[in-house]
Amino acid sequence: MKLSKMHLKTLREVPSEAELPSHVLLLRTGMIRKLVSGVYGFMPLGWRTLKKIEDIVRDEMDKTGAQEILMSAIQPSELWQESGRWFAYGPELWRLKDRHGREFCLGPTHEEIFTDIIRNDVSSYRQLPLNLYQIQTKYRDEARPRFGLMRSREFIMKDAYSFDRDQEGLDKSYQEMYEAYEKIFTRCGLTFRPVEADTGAIGGSNSHEFTAISEVGESEIAYCEHCHMAATTERAEVTDAAPQDDIEMLPLEKKLTPGTKTIEDVANFLELDKKQTIKALLFVKYDDEGNKDGYVAAFVRGDRELNEIKLVNALGIPEHAIEFADESEMSQATGCVGGFTGPMGLHDCTIVVDSELPGLKNMCAGACEEDHHYINMNYGRDYEGDIIADIKTLLEGDPCPVCGAPVKHARGIEVGQVFKLGTKYSEAMGAYYKDENQEEKPIVMGCYGIGVSRTMAAIVEQHHDENGIIWPMSVAPYHVIISLVKPGDETQAKVAEDIYEQLCAAGVEVMLDDRDERPGVKFKDADLLGIPVRITVGRGAADGVVEYKLRRDAEKEELPVAEAIAKAIEIVNSEK
Amino acid sequence: MKLSKMHLKTLREVPSEAELPSHVLLLRTGMIRKLVSGVYGFMPLGWRTLKKIEDIVRDEMDKTGAQEILMSAIQPSELWQESGRWFAYGPELWRLKDRHGREFCLGPTHEEIFTDIIRNDVSSYRQLPLNLYQIQTKYRDEARPRFGLMRSREFIMKDAYSFDRDQEGLDKSYQEMYEAYEKIFTRCGLTFRPVEADTGAIGGSNSHEFTAISEVGESEIAYCEHCHMAATTERAEVTDAAPQDDIEMLPLEKKLTPGTKTIEDVANFLELDKKQTIKALLFVKYDDEGNKDGYVAAFVRGDRELNEIKLVNALGIPEHAIEFADESEMSQATGCVGGFTGPMGLHDCTIVVDSELPGLKNMCAGACEEDHHYINMNYGRDYEGDIIADIKTLLEGDPCPVCGAPVKHARGIEVGQVFKLGTKYSEAMGAYYKDENQEEKPIVMGCYGIGVSRTMAAIVEQHHDENGIIWPMSVAPYHVIISLVKPGDETQAKVAEDIYEQLCAAGVEVMLDDRDERPGVKFKDADLLGIPVRITVGRGAADGVVEYKLRRDAEKEELPVAEAIAKAIEIVNSEK
Repeated sequence: MKLSKMHLKTLREVPSEAELPSHVLLLRTGMIRKLVSGVYGFMPLGWRTLKKIEDIVRDEMDKTGAQEILMSAIQPSELWQESGRWFAYGPELWRLKDRHGREFCLGPTHEEIFTDIIRNDVSSYRQLPLNLYQIQTKYRDEARPRFGLMRSREFIMKDAYSFDRDQEGLDKSYQEMYEAYEKIFTRCGLTFRPVEADTGAIGGSNSHEFTAISEVGESEIAYCEHCHMAATTERAEVTDAAPQDDIEMLPLEKKLTPGTKTIEDVANFLELDKKQTIKALLFVKYDDEGNKDGYVAAFVRGDRELNEIKLVNALGIPEHAIEFADESEMSQATGCVGGFTGPMGLHDCTIVVDSELPGLKNMCAGACEEDHHYINMNYGRDYEGDIIADIKTLLEGDPCPVCGAPVKHARGIEVGQVFKLGTKYSEAMGAYYKDENQEEKPIVMGCYGIGVSRTMAAIVEQHHDENGIIWPMSVAPYHVIISLVKPGDETQAKVAEDIYEQLCAAGVEVMLDDRDERPGVKFKDADLLGIPVRITVGRGAADGVVEYKLRRDAEKEELPVAEAIAKAIEIVNSEK
Repeated sequence: MKLSKMHLKTLREVPSEAELPSHVLLLRTGMIRKLVSGVYGFMPLGWRTLKKIEDIVRDEMDKTGAQEILMSAIQPSELWQESGRWFAYGPELWRLKDRHGREFCLGPTHEEIFTDIIRNDVSSYRQLPLNLYQIQTKYRDEARPRFGLMRSREFIMKDAYSFDRDQEGLDKSYQEMYEAYEKIFTRCGLTFRPVEADTGAIGGSNSHEFTAISEVGESEIAYCEHCHMAATTERAEVTDAAPQDDIEMLPLEKKLTPGTKTIEDVANFLELDKKQTIKALLFVKYDDEGNKDGYVAAFVRGDRELNEIKLVNALGIPEHAIEFADESEMSQATGCVGGFTGPMGLHDCTIVVDSELPGLKNMCAGACEEDHHYINMNYGRDYEGDIIADIKTLLEGDPCPVCGAPVKHARGIEVGQVFKLGTKYSEAMGAYYKDENQEEKPIVMGCYGIGVSRTMAAIVEQHHDENGIIWPMSVAPYHVIISLVKPGDETQAKVAEDIYEQLCAAGVEVMLDDRDERPGVKFKDADLLGIPVRITVGRGAADGVVEYKLRRDAEKEELPVAEAIAKAIEIVNSEK
C-alpha cells in the first residue's frame, strides 16, 4: 500500500485521556479511534493487526478440531434466567428491550446460547466430544471503562465451548485448549504465564488465566520461584497459621483502648504483635432485586488482608451483591461499633471467620463498645462464626501454599481464561445425552475465552519503546516500510517502486511512504507505527544502495538494493 | 473434514415457521439456527459459506482501493441527533441506554460514525478521495422479522463510504462501487439487476438497488425490455397522462350516488371510465415525538395506485410519520366523508394532488357528503392542492417513462444498494476540507451497502431444487463430498481416505461422510447440503471405480479413482 493513498492520521501529541503506553500508542498511531468512553473503532492499520491476531487464534483453534460458528450478539433474557445469571451477572450485563418490550442483553459471554444449541442438537454419546467456537464482538457495560482496548465496553473475543461425556473428557478438552492457548500467545509474541484463577460469574470448578506479564496490568498474580505454583491473588490459596493447640486459653479480659481504631493502633497500645489481633470488615448484602438483604462481618488475623472474592464465594453470592457497610447504619441493626467491632456482641449479621482463626489462641479483638477491646478471645469459648473459610489474600513473602518458599507478586494483563464448567449449565438448562446404555447424563462442559482486542493492547505493552510500537512480525500491520526520502527525485522514486514491487511479488506486505513530507516526519512515523523492517531509499539510490534497519535494533546497514530485498524477504518469512 | 467429527444436524422436517425455500433449506441443512424471532446464528457449514461471501466482498472492495476498518456496532445518540436521524430512522432503530442512562443505538448503518471520523481526520483536499468500508454485524428492530436471513433483526452487512472533493469525484467513486458490486454478485452466482431506487432514510440524490431476481423477493421492480429503464416500483417515474388543454370545462354538478364507496362503484353507477375519476387516500401525520400532527389527503386518478414512498418524499417526512387515518375521527376535523371524500370541501389538512390531475378535465370526485359525488370537477376552478407531485405507482403495462413501451414488473431480493449522499451528512455534521485556495468546502459522500447474510439467502433462492441447495462452487461450504457407502468395509474406507487426502493436498475443501449411517441417508444429506461435487465410494472401490456426480446435473459417471480425482480438482479450480 502506498501511504499517499492510505488513510493514516498519526498524532504528535499524547491524547489527554490515555495513560498506558498501549493506549497512548494505539491512539497516536491512529490504529484505533475512540468514539465514546470505552468504545473504540479500528482504523486500517489497527484492523490489519487485529485480523492477524484473529487468524492466529483461528488457526490454532482449528488445529484442535474445534469448529467455528457465529452466534448472535443479542441474547434473550429467558436463557439467562434459566441459567440463573440474569441477576448474577450484575450491572455489567448490558440490557435492552426490543420494540415489543421483550428483554435482551448484549452478550458478554455465550454459555447459555451454546448450551441451548447443544441441548437441541445433541442426544447421543456418539455426537460427543465437541468443541465450538466463535470470534465475536462482545459487550460489558463497565462502570469505569479505561485503558483503551484493555477495558472497553465493546470488544472482540474468541469464546470456545467444549462438550464432553464425563470429567475425563473435559480434562482432555481443557488440556487441549490450554496447549492451544500457549501456542497462540507465543505466536503473538507475548511473555505470559498461565495461573490458577477464580471462576467468577462464569462458574465451574477449575480455571486458569493466561496473564501477559506487565506492570500496568490489572491482574495481580502470586507465583513461586521454587515450584510451579502460580495463581491470581484473588484465587491463590493461603496456608493457615499452625493451630496453637498447645497454648492454654487465658481468661477473657476487656481493656480500655481509647482511640485505637486501627489494628496498628491497638497493637501498639497493648504492645501486641499484629498476629495476635483480629481485624473486622463490615459489609451490607443485596438481594436479586437490588434491595438490602442483611449484613456480613468478616474476620481475619490483624496482619492479613481480606480477599473479597473468596468472601463472596464463601457466601455463595455474586461479587456485586455486597459492598462496604455504612457503619453507623449497621451499628443500630447489629451492635457493631466503628473501629471497635469484634465477633463478640454482634447480632443479626452473618459472621464469616477466616479459616486460621479457630486455631489461634488468646486473640485481641474489638469489644463492640467504644474505646474497648477484648484480649484473650478464643474461638468456641468466646465467639463462633456462621461460616469458616479461607477469606484471606496471599501476600508477597507469604509461604507458598505448595512448597512453603516465600511467594512473589507480579502484575499482568488477563488475555485469556479457560474454565472447567462441569455440569453447571447443562443441568440448569437441561442439556443431557444418552450413553451406550440409554442412560441420560448431563453434558460436561468447558469454556475458553481470549480477549482478542485486549491481546492487541497487551502486545503493545510488551513491545514498545519511547519512539513507538515495535510489532512482532506475526502481528505487524505490514512487514516492511520503504521510506522514500525524496519522492520528487526520479531515481529514488524508481528504486523505491522497484523494491516495493519485488517485495509484494514475494508475498511481503509492504508500505511505501511516498508522501510529500519531510524525511524526519517519515522516520518518526515509521518508528511510531512499529513496522518491523525499514528500507530507506535516499541519496544512495543513485549508486544502488539503500539503508536497511530493523525497528527492534539500533543499527542500520547500507546495502545494495538486491541484498536489502533478500534480507527483508528472509526475515519476514522466518518470523511471520 | 470428516462428518463423524463434524457438528452437523440436518432436519428431515420442514420447520413450521419457514415459508421461503431459502429459509427452509438453511434451517434443514443446519447451516443457520434460530435463537428468537429475527435472530439467527451460523453453524459450521453456514459460517463457512458466509465467510466465503465476505471474502469475495472484501476482495473486490480491496481491488478498488477501499480500505477496511471496523467501527463499533454501538453508537451514541448524539451523533444521530446531529444528523437529524435520531427521529427520522423511526422504531427500527434499536435504542438502548448504558448504566449511566446515556442513550445509544445499535447501528443499522454508519453514516454518522464515518462522517465523524472524516471530520476529525481530513482537513485537506490532498487527503481525498477516500473509501472506507467494514463488514459488520448490524441491527434493525423490525416490526415483523421474517423469512430467515432475508429480514432479520441482527444481520451482517458490508458498508462502505466514499469521500470526495466534488460531484465529479463522487460520480467516479459511485461508478467504481457499482462495478465492484456487479463483480461481487456475479462471483456469488447471482442473477441480478441494478435498478434505480429511492434513497429512503439514508438520504441523498441518486441510488441504485442491486436486486437478485426472485419470485419470493420483497422488492418489486419495474423494467423495460425495449430500453435500459429499471427501477424499484417505489422509485420508478410515471409518465403523466397528456394534459387535456383542448377540452372545455363543463359546469360542476353534484350527483346522488348512493352507496358508491369505491371507484369501481361510482364509475359503474355514473357510466364513466375510471380514468375520469379521482381517488382519495387519507392519512394521519405524526411529529418527532410520535404525537398526531395533522392530516393528509392524497388524490390520484381513479385507475392509478398511490405510491406511499413518493407521498412521504413529497411531504418531506419519514415513512413512519404517516399512517392511514381513522376516517370517522378525521371527518370531524377535516370534513372528509368515508367513501365520498374529494378535494372540494376538505379543510384543515394537507392536500397532495398527483402531478397529472391538474391537466385532466371534468373529473368525478367525492363531494365530502354522504352518497354524493361531483362531476366535471376541474383543477384551478374547483379545487387546488397544497402540494403537486408525482405520487403514483408505475404499474405493469404502463408506458415506460423513458421509451413509452409497456413496462414489466418483477420481484427480487435487495442484496445491495449504492447511494449518492452528496453533502447531506457533511453539512449537517461539519465535515469540510480545504481546497488548493484554502477555501472550506463540504466533503461529498457516497455510501454503499451489501447485505452479506441476505446475499446468502438470495443465493439459495436462486440455486436449489426439491432435494436441497445447489451451491455455486465459489460459495459452497465444501467443494467435494465423498460419500463412503460402507465405512466398515476396509477397501472402501481406504479408497475414500485416499481420495480425501489427495483432494485435500490439492487445496480442495472436502467433506468425507464416514458416518455410520445408511447410504440413503448419506445421499439425501449430500443433496440437501448442496456440495457441488459428490464422489461415491461403494462396491466398485474393490475394482478402483467410484461414482462421480455434480449436484447440479442429473447424470452420474463411473470413473477410475484417479480420473475422478483429476476431474474434481479441475472443476473446483475452474469455478471456485
